[in-house]
Amino acid sequence: MNEKKAVGEKAADYVKDGMVIGLGTGSTVFYTITKLGRLVQQGLSIKGIPTSLQTEKLARELGIPLASFKEIDHIDVAIDGADEVNPDLALIKGGGGALLREKIIAKAANTFLVVADSHKLVDTLGAFPLPVEVVPFGMEMTRKYLEVLGGSPKLRQNNGSPYQTDNGNYIFDCSFQKITHPGELERDLNLIPGVVDNGLFVGMADIVITLNRQKEIDINMRK
Amino acid sequence: MNEKKAVGEKAADYVKDGMVIGLGTGSTVFYTITKLGRLVQQGLSIKGIPTSLQTEKLARELGIPLASFKEIDHIDVAIDGADEVNPDLALIKGGGGALLREKIIAKAANTFLVVADSHKLVDTLGAFPLPVEVVPFGMEMTRKYLEVLGGSPKLRQNNGSPYQTDNGNYIFDCSFQKITHPGELERDLNLIPGVVDNGLFVGMADIVITLNRQKEIDINMRK
Repeated sequence: MNEKKAVGEKAADYVKDGMVIGLGTGSTVFYTITKLGRLVQQGLSIKGIPTSLQTEKLARELGIPLASFKEIDHIDVAIDGADEVNPDLALIKGGGGALLREKIIAKAANTFLVVADSHKLVDTLGAFPLPVEVVPFGMEMTRKYLEVLGGSPKLRQNNGSPYQTDNGNYIFDCSFQKITHPGELERDLNLIPGVVDNGLFVGMADIVITLNRQKEIDINMRK
Repeated sequence: MNEKKAVGEKAADYVKDGMVIGLGTGSTVFYTITKLGRLVQQGLSIKGIPTSLQTEKLARELGIPLASFKEIDHIDVAIDGADEVNPDLALIKGGGGALLREKIIAKAANTFLVVADSHKLVDTLGAFPLPVEVVPFGMEMTRKYLEVLGGSPKLRQNNGSPYQTDNGNYIFDCSFQKITHPGELERDLNLIPGVVDNGLFVGMADIVITLNRQKEIDINMRK
């Protein structure tokens, strides 16, 4: 079975007529967006706020009406994937490079719903390198602080140049291996001058849709 | 007497041969830099790291050799002004818009030395509007979180357009009136997705040089 499809399509159940929906980016939420496109064709009325240019393009092709932050005063549900999910529903996100927009939209949403195939579930976050978005100025110093925190930072590259985010910043991928206190690390990283934000999403996911060992849909609510 | 000149020139006492010096921006540190220029003419050997293009220009005119972050592995002393200083030597900075570069350089310095005329000394921070640097994307949402924290944010303008920082971001000037727990507020602000950094400098200033009521030089060390 296609796990990503099963999980991604399930998320569309939470989308109701008249809602403003944050549309994430990635291979699982792709199926959510595709299903929403079909529902819109059948008469569902929603507005989408995309987290990336890639998702914006997909939504347009599918006929999902889009809105900008200027036109709306809230987001009902944001749906996005994750690179790792721990048992408290803390996440690592941003492998795709859009962590800041994803975080802005997730925080703005009344309900933040995560879709994740079972390979993303971990006991402890940190095997997946944590993306940290930094301003280019002084990045040599910022790199040192990340080293002090144990992050073994690697500057993300794109065809031999530093990868640039939509906001004109760089990304250090940080291999912490085991992140036992994600809330503390999220805060410590954001207190480093030069760090714009990082891919830890702690206390944000309200619902994580995944599959259990029997490959049945599993709905996890944050306690 | 010229308070700014007295205080600014005093800071030059802390600069020794061979040091890497962070050079701040503003009307008081102007006198520090001018004095350092004279000392360099007389044979003092230092390298400066400027916090702004304005300071870079001034240092060049005065013949102070400059370095970039790529060439150095530490800063010995950073010298900068402040908009407000409280009795714990917590600061509000960034009225000039360069808060992020100033914070990166202040944190990188072994000793962060602040020069402040006596009008900058306050019992409680917050009468001076706190600058908060934000990414343009989603700034409408970011503004709401700043309102929730009590900041009454005003988007800084420049000839009818949003003022842009050296990093391509915007600034909300936030009137908190009374900031009784600056460390907590600094952290809470930096946890808002979309906030790059803010003008609270807590636990960073090692020495504040100012004048006492008798208009004598007053050296305050952080406890």
